[in-house]
Amino acid sequence: MKKHNFYAGPSILPQFTLDETTKAIANFAGTGLSLMEISHRSKEFVAVMDETVALFKELLNIPEGYSVIFLGGGASLQFAMVPFNLFRTKAAYLNTGEWASKALKEAKFFGEVVEVASSKDKMFNYIPKGWTVPEDADYFHITTNNTIYGTEIRQDFDCKVPLVADMSSDIFSRPIDVSKYALIYGGAQKNLAPAGVTFVIVRNDVLGKVERPIPTMLKYQTHIDKESMFNTPPCVPVFAALQTLKWLKSMGGVAEMEKINIKKAALLYDEIDRNPMFKGTVVKEDRSLMNICFVMDEKYIQFEKEFLDLAATRGLVGLKGHRSVGGFRASTYNALPIESVQALVDAMKEFEKMKA
Amino acid sequence: MKKHNFYAGPSILPQFTLDETTKAIANFAGTGLSLMEISHRSKEFVAVMDETVALFKELLNIPEGYSVIFLGGGASLQFAMVPFNLFRTKAAYLNTGEWASKALKEAKFFGEVVEVASSKDKMFNYIPKGWTVPEDADYFHITTNNTIYGTEIRQDFDCKVPLVADMSSDIFSRPIDVSKYALIYGGAQKNLAPAGVTFVIVRNDVLGKVERPIPTMLKYQTHIDKESMFNTPPCVPVFAALQTLKWLKSMGGVAEMEKINIKKAALLYDEIDRNPMFKGTVVKEDRSLMNICFVMDEKYIQFEKEFLDLAATRGLVGLKGHRSVGGFRASTYNALPIESVQALVDAMKEFEKMKA
Repeated sequence: MKKHNFYAGPSILPQFTLDETTKAIANFAGTGLSLMEISHRSKEFVAVMDETVALFKELLNIPEGYSVIFLGGGASLQFAMVPFNLFRTKAAYLNTGEWASKALKEAKFFGEVVEVASSKDKMFNYIPKGWTVPEDADYFHITTNNTIYGTEIRQDFDCKVPLVADMSSDIFSRPIDVSKYALIYGGAQKNLAPAGVTFVIVRNDVLGKVERPIPTMLKYQTHIDKESMFNTPPCVPVFAALQTLKWLKSMGGVAEMEKINIKKAALLYDEIDRNPMFKGTVVKEDRSLMNICFVMDEKYIQFEKEFLDLAATRGLVGLKGHRSVGGFRASTYNALPIESVQALVDAMKEFEKMKA
Repeated sequence: MKKHNFYAGPSILPQFTLDETTKAIANFAGTGLSLMEISHRSKEFVAVMDETVALFKELLNIPEGYSVIFLGGGASLQFAMVPFNLFRTKAAYLNTGEWASKALKEAKFFGEVVEVASSKDKMFNYIPKGWTVPEDADYFHITTNNTIYGTEIRQDFDCKVPLVADMSSDIFSRPIDVSKYALIYGGAQKNLAPAGVTFVIVRNDVLGKVERPIPTMLKYQTHIDKESMFNTPPCVPVFAALQTLKWLKSMGGVAEMEKINIKKAALLYDEIDRNPMFKGTVVKEDRSLMNICFVMDEKYIQFEKEFLDLAATRGLVGLKGHRSVGGFRASTYNALPIESVQALVDAMKEFEKMKA
């Protein structure tokens, strides 16, 4: 039985990505060697890296003056790399969840951090509004999609200081106006690739302004100068990312993907709101299109495990909510077909008939 | 035609590793999901991580009191992480090549670094002898195998200060006495896995002694406490590493592997020494078993490209020497069969008949 994969990350990838990666592990680019066994400096792999950067820029419509690099270490390493490269005297952070909090914590190693606003008071179930960013902050950091809590900032906005965004879990899910950001980063293991590669989009003119010595590997300029080949890149994840980008382009790009994502999310949110057994955990206007968090209504709370068991019999996997929220979380990344969302909705309806 | 893969890294892996990884990308551990698409917190992947650590410890006979962790970012990131975690006032480095120099350079961000000895005077074609490590150094750093120059330190030795070794390119090629080391690290893309994962073996009692605040991701203790799951690990490279370890065990482990490696290296070095067209670049006693560097004798220097072309027609790939040494480099990692070395020797003999 084909599984319906709702994991929050690593998560579902296009079948095309799996197929092409498998082929390349057998014979990469006609070399007779495996993708896993070939030098990153071979002309065939250099071509993969170049094409990945080019297609990444094309699909996000990244303006001139920005660099795109691919690194190892995960988005968690970016929590430290961002301040290493941008922090002079003060930074501002919006605290919208666990990952945002972790990013903020790392910045504190470097000096004064202003928490502009936080939604911690309500278990991060909304995006704070009406905050003001100090004009003397070196940068303002946001997390556009909060994987654990299911909230999302879906509007690009103007910011008087350089805007830095962790887009680990919603990159490529919608068109973004990159020109409004100084730096965007993310782990690739949601909408892009298997775990092991991190992307960074950075406006070149924000770099080179700090006095501190930066360890070579933690300096963005190192990787920009060497086109992500300062050291051996994670070749398999980079190759897989390229396949996902090709698939995305064939699907019509991010504008088309956003339409599908809106449709998928609406299908599930409508059922959550209609079905008396379930309820959403997030303020409606801030609901994420990528991670849909919901719980059993108090009256039916004892059936939580039973619902997960029913879901499992239908091939619906990865639905257990994060331990800090509980309940359920359906991650509806780009590669998840609407049929999988429909299968979940059908299971919810059936469970209602059985129990309500 | 099956290729003979002499790349220095990423490099040849056992066919078993390729086959098992391919199967897991189709259906991982019977889950019906791809290894590329499954949560690192799924019980199936947690089992992979646990087994990888256990087998890693078993095959290297790692004593009690040591931790083994797997990280992203590459060995180059370890050049900074080692001093972040161990450097208090002074560190000592042995400079045996480009990677050793890079490691030393990063340590200088943290304070006084003593270059105990260097072989730079002769293009790193030997391992310095007779050096003294300052007894007040916080640690002494060596690079056991120098991939670019083809030298290797093959004897474990006693050291009065904590000994730190970059074993990126010779880990698992021979038995090592781990108890002589405080910390051993390496990128996995030679004898272990595709690029994207780095291993660290660390004696727990050397940690926690520095005053500086260490960014969370750069602190070894973070990853020890969370068993390499503080953030999403590079799942595909970790899985592939496990397959290589299983293969290694089936081959008889590191002691058996060393015998084969000695035999393979002898076959090629003997031909280099016998064949008047070629000559080795490294002092004999310091020759690496992993990366065999040689050049055309001056008399035949004009035939360099022609020899590479002949090699290519025989399916011998990855033989071009590193740009800083020139000539040829045959990397003879664990997974390279002796038949491939024989094919190279045959090509050298044939070239001699054609030209000498």
